[in-house]
Amino acid sequence: MDPIFLMNNLWIMIAFILVILMQGGFILLEAGSTRMKNAGHIAGKTIFTLGIVSLVFWAVGYGFIYGESAGGFIGLSDFFFGDFTTMFDGLAGSVDFIFQLAFAAIALTVAFGGFAERAKLSAYIVFAVLFSAFVYPVVAHWIWGSGWIGELGKQDFAGSTVVHLTGAMAAMAATLLLKPRIGKYNKDGSPNELAGHNQVFTALGVLLLWVGWFGFNAGSTFGVADAFFGFVALNTQLAAAAGAVAALLIAWASLGKADVPTMLNGALAGLVAITASCAFVEPWAAVVIGIVGGLLVFYSMKFFEKMGIDDPIFALSVHGAAGVWGTLSTGFFATPGLAEMNGGQAGLFYGGGFAQLGVQLISVVACGVFAFIASYVLLLITKSLIGGLRVSEEEEIMGLDISEHGSYGYPENVQTQSNNVNTGA
Amino acid sequence: MDPIFLMNNLWIMIAFILVILMQGGFILLEAGSTRMKNAGHIAGKTIFTLGIVSLVFWAVGYGFIYGESAGGFIGLSDFFFGDFTTMFDGLAGSVDFIFQLAFAAIALTVAFGGFAERAKLSAYIVFAVLFSAFVYPVVAHWIWGSGWIGELGKQDFAGSTVVHLTGAMAAMAATLLLKPRIGKYNKDGSPNELAGHNQVFTALGVLLLWVGWFGFNAGSTFGVADAFFGFVALNTQLAAAAGAVAALLIAWASLGKADVPTMLNGALAGLVAITASCAFVEPWAAVVIGIVGGLLVFYSMKFFEKMGIDDPIFALSVHGAAGVWGTLSTGFFATPGLAEMNGGQAGLFYGGGFAQLGVQLISVVACGVFAFIASYVLLLITKSLIGGLRVSEEEEIMGLDISEHGSYGYPENVQTQSNNVNTGA
Amino acid sequence: MDPIFLMNNLWIMIAFILVILMQGGFILLEAGSTRMKNAGHIAGKTIFTLGIVSLVFWAVGYGFIYGESAGGFIGLSDFFFGDFTTMFDGLAGSVDFIFQLAFAAIALTVAFGGFAERAKLSAYIVFAVLFSAFVYPVVAHWIWGSGWIGELGKQDFAGSTVVHLTGAMAAMAATLLLKPRIGKYNKDGSPNELAGHNQVFTALGVLLLWVGWFGFNAGSTFGVADAFFGFVALNTQLAAAAGAVAALLIAWASLGKADVPTMLNGALAGLVAITASCAFVEPWAAVVIGIVGGLLVFYSMKFFEKMGIDDPIFALSVHGAAGVWGTLSTGFFATPGLAEMNGGQAGLFYGGGFAQLGVQLISVVACGVFAFIASYVLLLITKSLIGGLRVSEEEEIMGLDISEHGSYGYPENVQTQSNNVNTGA
Repeated sequence: MDPIFLMNNLWIMIAFILVILMQGGFILLEAGSTRMKNAGHIAGKTIFTLGIVSLVFWAVGYGFIYGESAGGFIGLSDFFFGDFTTMFDGLAGSVDFIFQLAFAAIALTVAFGGFAERAKLSAYIVFAVLFSAFVYPVVAHWIWGSGWIGELGKQDFAGSTVVHLTGAMAAMAATLLLKPRIGKYNKDGSPNELAGHNQVFTALGVLLLWVGWFGFNAGSTFGVADAFFGFVALNTQLAAAAGAVAALLIAWASLGKADVPTMLNGALAGLVAITASCAFVEPWAAVVIGIVGGLLVFYSMKFFEKMGIDDPIFALSVHGAAGVWGTLSTGFFATPGLAEMNGGQAGLFYGGGFAQLGVQLISVVACGVFAFIASYVLLLITKSLIGGLRVSEEEEIMGLDISEHGSYGYPENVQTQSNNVNTGA
Repeated sequence: MDPIFLMNNLWIMIAFILVILMQGGFILLEAGSTRMKNAGHIAGKTIFTLGIVSLVFWAVGYGFIYGESAGGFIGLSDFFFGDFTTMFDGLAGSVDFIFQLAFAAIALTVAFGGFAERAKLSAYIVFAVLFSAFVYPVVAHWIWGSGWIGELGKQDFAGSTVVHLTGAMAAMAATLLLKPRIGKYNKDGSPNELAGHNQVFTALGVLLLWVGWFGFNAGSTFGVADAFFGFVALNTQLAAAAGAVAALLIAWASLGKADVPTMLNGALAGLVAITASCAFVEPWAAVVIGIVGGLLVFYSMKFFEKMGIDDPIFALSVHGAAGVWGTLSTGFFATPGLAEMNGGQAGLFYGGGFAQLGVQLISVVACGVFAFIASYVLLLITKSLIGGLRVSEEEEIMGLDISEHGSYGYPENVQTQSNNVNTGA
Repeated sequence: MDPIFLMNNLWIMIAFILVILMQGGFILLEAGSTRMKNAGHIAGKTIFTLGIVSLVFWAVGYGFIYGESAGGFIGLSDFFFGDFTTMFDGLAGSVDFIFQLAFAAIALTVAFGGFAERAKLSAYIVFAVLFSAFVYPVVAHWIWGSGWIGELGKQDFAGSTVVHLTGAMAAMAATLLLKPRIGKYNKDGSPNELAGHNQVFTALGVLLLWVGWFGFNAGSTFGVADAFFGFVALNTQLAAAAGAVAALLIAWASLGKADVPTMLNGALAGLVAITASCAFVEPWAAVVIGIVGGLLVFYSMKFFEKMGIDDPIFALSVHGAAGVWGTLSTGFFATPGLAEMNGGQAGLFYGGGFAQLGVQLISVVACGVFAFIASYVLLLITKSLIGGLRVSEEEEIMGLDISEHGSYGYPENVQTQSNNVNTGA
C-alpha cells in the first residue's frame, strides 16, 4: 500500500487523538473557571457529552455534513456510519470520520460555556443532542461539505467559524435565555466577579488545549504533503504566544494587575484566531493576529460584562470575538502563494483587494446568524419540553453537583466549609 | 530502509507513549476516587510502581512472556533484555519491548485497586514485584506468547483478558484478603459510601485513559497496514461513548440521580469491553458492546457492594465484569471478514455457531482462575514475609500519606481541617 | 516527495508536541511543590513565559543558535524566522524551528525554579527575555550550532548540558541573589520544610514530564532512521524507572520514611541523567545511570539545603547535579558502536580511555560557568532596572497570587482558611 497514503492516515489519526485530548483541557478550563460547588457537574458533563456527541455524530451528524447535498444546505446520506472501505478527504473512511467527530465535540463543548453554573442537566442534555444533530452539521456542511459557502472560496482552514463561532453563538443564545447567575450583577447593574476556584486547573487546561490545537490546526492539512503541518504548527505557536503576552500586558496596563485569567484567555484567543488563517499567512502575520486576538479578548470581556451578558467561561469573547477576528484576518493577511495552495485568494494587504475579505465577512454573518437563531429556537423548544431551562434559586445556591447529580464534587472540602458555617465563621 | 517498516515502528512508538500516558489517567482516577488523606500515597505509588514494573519486566517479565515456550506454559529466555537487533512482531526489538512493557504496567495498576486506602506500602511493593514477574507474564504468554490459549484461536485484540481481567482478579484477591475499609460497612452489613474526594480528578482521569486507550487498542494493530488503526479507534470511541451514556441513564433511572462516578465508570467499562473485540466487530456492535458494558458496571458495582466486597476504585466492576463481557462479546459479534483478517472465527450472530464463544469462555475461566489463585497465594506469601498486609486501625484512620510516607499529600488542607476540629466544628 | 523525509518530519512534529506537553508537567510539578498562596502565579507564569520564549526565540534566539557562527561563539543570522523553504537538520525548516523552540522553553522553565515564591513578577519577566535571548542560545550554539564544543566531539544527545544544566545554573544564580524564602531557615541556620501543597499535582506532573521526555530524547534522533527512536525510548524508560526506585529506597533507608517528593525527584533525575547518554549506552548502563541519578538527587537535596541554598523546586539537584552526572556518564558508558553511530568516542569502561570523559568534563565546566555568570550578571542588571528582585516581606507572606496578580489562585480555599483565622483556630 502507498506509504504516503498510510502516512496521511497516521498523521490524521494522531491529530484526532490530540483533538480528543482538548476535552481534557476543557474539563480543567471550565471547572477551574467556575466555583467549587459546580466542579463535579462541569467535569462530569464533559465526559458524557463527549459520549452524546459521538453517538449523534455517528447516527446523523456525519451524514448531514458529508452526505449528498440537498441544494447546498444539508447532506442527506451516510447515516449510522459503518462504511470503512470508501475514502474521504483522501483518507480511509474511518480515519476521516473520527477526526470530524472530534471537531463536532469541540463545538458542543464551547457551547456549554453559556449554560455553566445554572442550567438544568436535563435541558443541557436535550440541547446537546439537538445542537449536535441540527446546528453544527449545517454550518459544517455549508463550509466544509459541498455547501454554498465553501463554493464561494471561504478560507477557514481549521474552523474559526465552523467550530468556534458556531459554538460561541450557541453559548450566547443559552446565556441570554438563562439570564445571569445569582450574584453576578448588583441591583444597580454593576457586575461582581464570581472568581473561578482553581487557577492551576485553568492554566493546565490552557496548556492541554494549546497542545491539542496542534492536532486541530496542523491536522487540518489532512495529510503530510510537503510537511506543511510544520508551518501550520509554527503559526499556531506564535499566535498563541502573542495572544498570551498581549493580554497580559493590556490587563497589567489597564487594571494595574497582571490578571491570570485574562492572560490565559489571551492565549486561547490567539489560538482561536489563527485557526482560520494558520495555512494562509506568514509567521509575522501570525504574531499580529495573535496580538490582536489577545487585545480583543480583554476588551470584549469587559464589553459583554457591561452589556449585562454573563459569560462564565468567556465563550463569547474567546471563541466568538476571536473567532470572528480570525475569520476576517485571512482576508487581510493571506499571501498569494499560500492562498493558491490552500484555496481562496490573497488578502487585502497582499494586493488581493476586498474580494476575499468580503467572502469572509459574508460567511461570518451567515454562519453566526444561523447558529444563533437555530440555537435560540432549539432552546425554546427544549424549554417547553423540560419545563424550564434553569434550576431553582435554591438549587443554584447549593450548587449543581448536589442538585443535579446527588453528590459533591469535592465532598471533603464542602464538609470543611460547612463546618466553618456552623461555627459562625 | 523500508518506509512501511519504519512507519510501523513509528506508530507503535506513539502507541507506547499513549499507554504510558494512561498512568496519568490512573493517578487521577485513583486519587480522585479515594479520600484526601491517602491522595499523596496513591498518586506517588503510581510513579514508583511504574518504575518497579519496568525493571522487573526488563529483567524477567519479557522473557517469561516471549521467550522460548516451556510447554506452552511460560517462556524461558531473553532475560535482561538488551537485544536491539532482532525483530519481533515485525517491529524493531526495542519498540516491541517498550510497547509490551507499558501493557504490563497497566495490569499492575489495575491490580492496585484492591489494595487502596488500607494496604501497607511494603506489602504492595512486594506484591508488585511478584505480580509483574509471575502472574501477568504467565497469562500474557498463554494468550500472546506461544502459549496454549493463543493456539486455540482466542480473540483478545488488545487485552480485555490479558491486561484487564488479570489485573482485576489480582485486585479481587487483595480486597478479599485485606477486608473492607473501616467505615465501609455498618454492623448490620449495610454499606456506606466513602466518597472520592475530587470528581474533577476522576473525570480528567477518565479522559486521559480514553485518550491513551487509542494507543492501547489501535496500537495493537502492531502497524499501519490498511490504516486499520482508524477502524479500531472508531469502535473504541463508540463503545466508550455508549458506555458513558448508558451508565448515566441507568443510574438516573434507578437511583433518581445522574451519578457522576457511575457515568465515568460506564465510559471505562465501554473501553474495557471493546478492548478484546475492537478489531472484530462492526461499529453498530461496538455501540451495543459499550451499552452492555455501561449497564453491567452499574449492576456489578451494586452486586459487589452487597456481597460485602469493598472495591474502592471499582476494579472488579470496570476491569473484571466488563473484561469478561468484552472477551465474550467477540464470540457473539465477530464478523466473518474481520475474524479472517485478525484471527479466530465468526461469532454466534454471524453464523459462526458456538465455536468461538467456547474458546472465549474457556480462556476467561482459565485466565481468571489462574490469576486469582496465583495472586492469592503470592499475597499469602507476602503476608508472612512482611508480617501482615494491612496497616493498623490507627494508621488507616490518620491516612496512608502520613503513616506510610511521613507527609501529607495536601498539607495545607489537612491543616485547615484540623483547625476546624480544634474549634469543635 | 520522499516518504522517509516526510516521516522524519512527522516524527519530529510529534516530538515537538510532546515537548510542549512537558510544560503541563512543569505547571503541576512547580505548583504542587510550592504553597497554595503562590499556585495561580506559578501555573500562570508557565503559560505566558511559554509565550515570551516563543516570541524571543522567533525574533533572535534561533538566529543566535543556528545562524552563521561568529567565531564559534554565537550565530548572527536568521532572525525573525520566516523561511520555510530551506531545510535544517534534514528537516523542513518550520519543523526544525518549532522543535528547537520547545527546547528553549524547557530551559527557561527549569531556570524559574530559583525564582519561586519570592521573585517579583516584573523581575522574572525581564530575566525571561534576557535568558532566552542571551544565555540559552549561546550554550546551544556552542554544543549544537557550529560552536567550539560541538567541534570537540561532545556527546549530549538531547541536552543534559544544553537544556538542563543551563537552566539549573540560572536557577542557582537567581536563588543565591534572591536569598531563601521567609521561614525556610531558623535563626540558628537549621532548615524547615516548606511542604508543597499538592502531591497529586507533583506526581501527575512527573508523569507528564516522563511522557513528554520521549519526545525530548527520542525526538533528538531528528528522524526515523533504523527506528532508533525505540532504543532511545527504552533507555529513557529504564533510567527513569531506576531513578524512582533508587530514590525511594535511599529515602526509606536513610530517613525511615518512603518520602514521595524524593521519589518523584528520583524519577526526574533518572530522566535528566539519561538525556545526554540515551543514544550512546546499553540498557543495563541506562539502569545504572538512573540509579546513580536517583541516589545523587537525594544527597544533593540534603547538601544544598545544608549549604543554606533554598531550592524550592529542586532545580539544582534534579537538573543541575543529575545534568552533570548525565553528561559525564556517557564518558564512562558509551559503547564503541553507538559512539560511532552518534558521534564522539567510546567511554572509559569500553576501552575509550579518558578522551571522551575529558571532553564531557570540559563542556560541563565551560557551559556551567558561562550559564551561571551570564545569568548572575543579567540578574544584577535586571535588579537595577526594576529596583530589586524580590517582593516585600508582607507580599511574600500574603502570597504572590494576590500581590503580583491581584487575585487568589484558589479563592474559595483561601476564604476557608481566613475564616478559620477569624475564629481563632
